[in-house]
Amino acid sequence: MNSSEPDRSKCRVIIDAMGGDFAPLNNVLGALQAVNEVKDIDLFLVGNSDGINRVLSERNVSFKKENIIHADRVIEMGENPTQALKSKPDSSLMIGAGLVRDHKADALLSAGNTGAMMAASTLMLGRIPGVGRPTIGAEMPNVNGTCYLYDVGAGKDSRPQHLFEYAVMGSLYAREIGGIDNPSVGVLSMGEEEGKGNETSEAASKLLRQSSLNFIGNVEGRDILTGKVDVVVCDGFVGNIILKFGEAVPRLLKYLLSETAKENFTDKLKIWLTRGTLRKALKRLDYQEYGGVPLLGVRGISIIGHGSSTPKAIKNMVLRAKEMYDKDLLGKIENSLSQYSEKKGLV
Amino acid sequence: MNSSEPDRSKCRVIIDAMGGDFAPLNNVLGALQAVNEVKDIDLFLVGNSDGINRVLSERNVSFKKENIIHADRVIEMGENPTQALKSKPDSSLMIGAGLVRDHKADALLSAGNTGAMMAASTLMLGRIPGVGRPTIGAEMPNVNGTCYLYDVGAGKDSRPQHLFEYAVMGSLYAREIGGIDNPSVGVLSMGEEEGKGNETSEAASKLLRQSSLNFIGNVEGRDILTGKVDVVVCDGFVGNIILKFGEAVPRLLKYLLSETAKENFTDKLKIWLTRGTLRKALKRLDYQEYGGVPLLGVRGISIIGHGSSTPKAIKNMVLRAKEMYDKDLLGKIENSLSQYSEKKGLV
Repeated sequence: MNSSEPDRSKCRVIIDAMGGDFAPLNNVLGALQAVNEVKDIDLFLVGNSDGINRVLSERNVSFKKENIIHADRVIEMGENPTQALKSKPDSSLMIGAGLVRDHKADALLSAGNTGAMMAASTLMLGRIPGVGRPTIGAEMPNVNGTCYLYDVGAGKDSRPQHLFEYAVMGSLYAREIGGIDNPSVGVLSMGEEEGKGNETSEAASKLLRQSSLNFIGNVEGRDILTGKVDVVVCDGFVGNIILKFGEAVPRLLKYLLSETAKENFTDKLKIWLTRGTLRKALKRLDYQEYGGVPLLGVRGISIIGHGSSTPKAIKNMVLRAKEMYDKDLLGKIENSLSQYSEKKGLV
Repeated sequence: MNSSEPDRSKCRVIIDAMGGDFAPLNNVLGALQAVNEVKDIDLFLVGNSDGINRVLSERNVSFKKENIIHADRVIEMGENPTQALKSKPDSSLMIGAGLVRDHKADALLSAGNTGAMMAASTLMLGRIPGVGRPTIGAEMPNVNGTCYLYDVGAGKDSRPQHLFEYAVMGSLYAREIGGIDNPSVGVLSMGEEEGKGNETSEAASKLLRQSSLNFIGNVEGRDILTGKVDVVVCDGFVGNIILKFGEAVPRLLKYLLSETAKENFTDKLKIWLTRGTLRKALKRLDYQEYGGVPLLGVRGISIIGHGSSTPKAIKNMVLRAKEMYDKDLLGKIENSLSQYSEKKGLV
């Protein structure tokens, strides 16, 4: 994939400076943090150069001039992705995606329009051979650390083969980035027994049983949190709903605590005294802490940030991109999927 | 439905005395609590009469002799529902279901084999006219009180018409039992905009837009908890996964608190001092508190209890049955669905 690029020592990262609710400010500040803290990266800011330079001069800081790449336009948060891609080839996102496609960069990071980022990555970079559908995962906190849930929104109405690919890519991600040795994989279902799934999940289980993955069979909704399984695969429709349900849990807890505090003064006082500790305990439920989520399966590193990404979140996205690059995750995905298509005739 | 029964003043309730992990003990004790606390009910215990009488004599209490109905056999928790129903017509569950079918009782309650209870209720009692598929709901705690989620396990691969029926039944339940005036209804989806659902959910939305329900369109996973909507409908596969995910949240919180307590002595002390208050706040997340869940859409009141139901849970199931009976919920479901089939040609 990187045949035109002889030097793999430095990961070249594009930040869409115009993406997100606090652009270009947070993207520029995040880039500066990354430059200061992360070694062996070559960082580029793509976007309105006046806007970028204004942030730099206001903060009285400097950024390599030749690494600021001007783009005339911006794809806004609310725009229709497909239309925006067509009508704005001169947008920061499209210019950034073009640089990765042309092997002039290795990674594309954007906290902007999620749909546009997914579409630009898929259409401009193309899919890794063997991948029918790219996928976005979520790192769900569980009692062991993390459960990797795929897919949480790249696609609905997935076919069994897609779930199989999610499992292959998710396992590699959990191993290489999550540091989990031989991660266990389950298919989300209504019960552990065979036949407790729907048509797609049951067919996906059949494919996974024939694979060399550490497949443990059907798992239930609770197993995402109980630590029984490291990687869970499901259709994007289901995964997206679970992810958003999970994101709302802290708000419900806050409400339940405030209701309890109303009951009497002692409870109120105790909750007030413990508030800092509770906040600390619940921090892991704050999905925004993690920075962005990679779109796996496209020919290039593509990391999608939350619209409200902080400079720290942007920096974390750079760190993640570098780690994926250093471990050649995309090469490993291609290699792994090609083995299945050759040996097992599964693709 | 109750044409053969002239006196509607007393709700006749069958308790499957042999259902659940603590049968017949908890069922008998629950029945005794109900008899003492609930007026205008006629309660029957169906099961092994020796076992029932042993509990009564051990506790030195009495129960109306003519309301103990002997059954030779029991459908065990792990049995295949369809096979068990066929091979054990003399089981407590089947005898109880037969009594409701024959209008000798109004409600069937069991904490036993869930699948067998669902199958017995559907096959023996039949469906209310206009119901293509009965449904089980979950009462999810949210920041307004409760969100009613249908379906959470009666059926996977639902058709759009099924989701429509869930909405009609769920709305009536939320209004009559939940006390919510003109409950809002949403279809679970990946986003609020049209087109963000899958094929089934989008088609269900079309049906619901034509209805007289208070339909607010697509809702997201977070909206189950944020209080934006009172009744949420989805396929049973999705609902079941969410329900079980939600059930595991308290366990995750307990873990996160224990991890935080390890960090330093102050946090540990604070969490220890607040533990009672926290338990109180999280009590609403304990789904077992509610007692059983009704199977809506069958011609008779059918309430399915948790396998580990306490006597209090059994008593709560009796209360729920009586409330559904007093408010003629089943008659209202039939009436409501028939209006749609006549006026709107939806069924």
